[in-house]
Amino acid sequence: MRVLGVDPGLTRCGVGVIDGVPGRALTLVGTDVIRTPPGDDIALRLLALEAGIESWLTEHQPDAVAVERVFSQHNVRTVMGTAQAGAVAILCGARRGLPVALHTPSEVKAAVTGNGRAGKEQVTEMVTRLLRMDNPPRPADSADALALAICHLWRGGAQRRLAAAVAAATVLQAAAARGGER
Amino acid sequence: MRVLGVDPGLTRCGVGVIDGVPGRALTLVGTDVIRTPPGDDIALRLLALEAGIESWLTEHQPDAVAVERVFSQHNVRTVMGTAQAGAVAILCGARRGLPVALHTPSEVKAAVTGNGRAGKEQVTEMVTRLLRMDNPPRPADSADALALAICHLWRGGAQRRLAAAVAAATVLQAAAARGGER
Repeated sequence: MRVLGVDPGLTRCGVGVIDGVPGRALTLVGTDVIRTPPGDDIALRLLALEAGIESWLTEHQPDAVAVERVFSQHNVRTVMGTAQAGAVAILCGARRGLPVALHTPSEVKAAVTGNGRAGKEQVTEMVTRLLRMDNPPRPADSADALALAICHLWRGGAQRRLAAAVAAATVLQAAAARGGER
Repeated sequence: MRVLGVDPGLTRCGVGVIDGVPGRALTLVGTDVIRTPPGDDIALRLLALEAGIESWLTEHQPDAVAVERVFSQHNVRTVMGTAQAGAVAILCGARRGLPVALHTPSEVKAAVTGNGRAGKEQVTEMVTRLLRMDNPPRPADSADALALAICHLWRGGAQRRLAAAVAAATVLQAAAARGGER
């Protein structure tokens, strides 16, 4: 399974693609930061961001897109741009019929480091290790997009296993109930 | 000149198209509210909104798009959805190479009623009068999208006239300066 993680932002939008199966080693496919000039018109910036994300989708053909869920409680100055950039990423994925999932920053930190309040360095260190990279990802803030992709792959896997376990249990219960009726 | 006004929202997104020239009577072309179900996945909602705005652009071929500028200070619960919906509207216009302008709610109120703090009823009443409609626009909340389009048409006109006046004055000053040199 291939996942594109997007850490949305207008000035800097992190993107990262990984390959993997839950429980197995992960592989880094690529990572970068898409930038749009803060002085540019918002229309041009959203257009440039859309083109950037489209080119990542076309080049790497992911099976799913994971986008950071933005909270309005945080920095009110940047939250509008983050919400707008996130909308572009969600739209690009949805338009191709890909599953698009949102994960909160604490879900991502918990998935990658085991601690929902982990610091940036800890996340970067774990991403570097999990993807067996010799050096931390560059640009530095692309690590969050990779963490998001890892979180999605693992949570998705855990959710699929849980769903499978629930389905199996339901079958057993139904069988037991039928047995009891006899 | 034909303007599409968009009052962004995920659950209800007002759209309104008007024809006009600054200083002349305005004509209503059409207005509606694009709805997406609150229970749906955000990816589906943004996709449905994009399809809705695209169909308005295709059907009415406006020369410009005016979108309400969202402020993060207001209702933090709905502001994320409003920012996301606004991003979709801006993107749809920009993708067609149309000029996209943002106007604040108080700019819109001031342009339409002469009072930047006018109430909703006052805005609706003026929109109804300015577009020479027999009854207020339906659905009721589509009036804001029409007000936005009117504001854009008039502000754009005023700005063009101001720019022309400044250009003319510059030419006169330059001529006077050349006259003084002799």
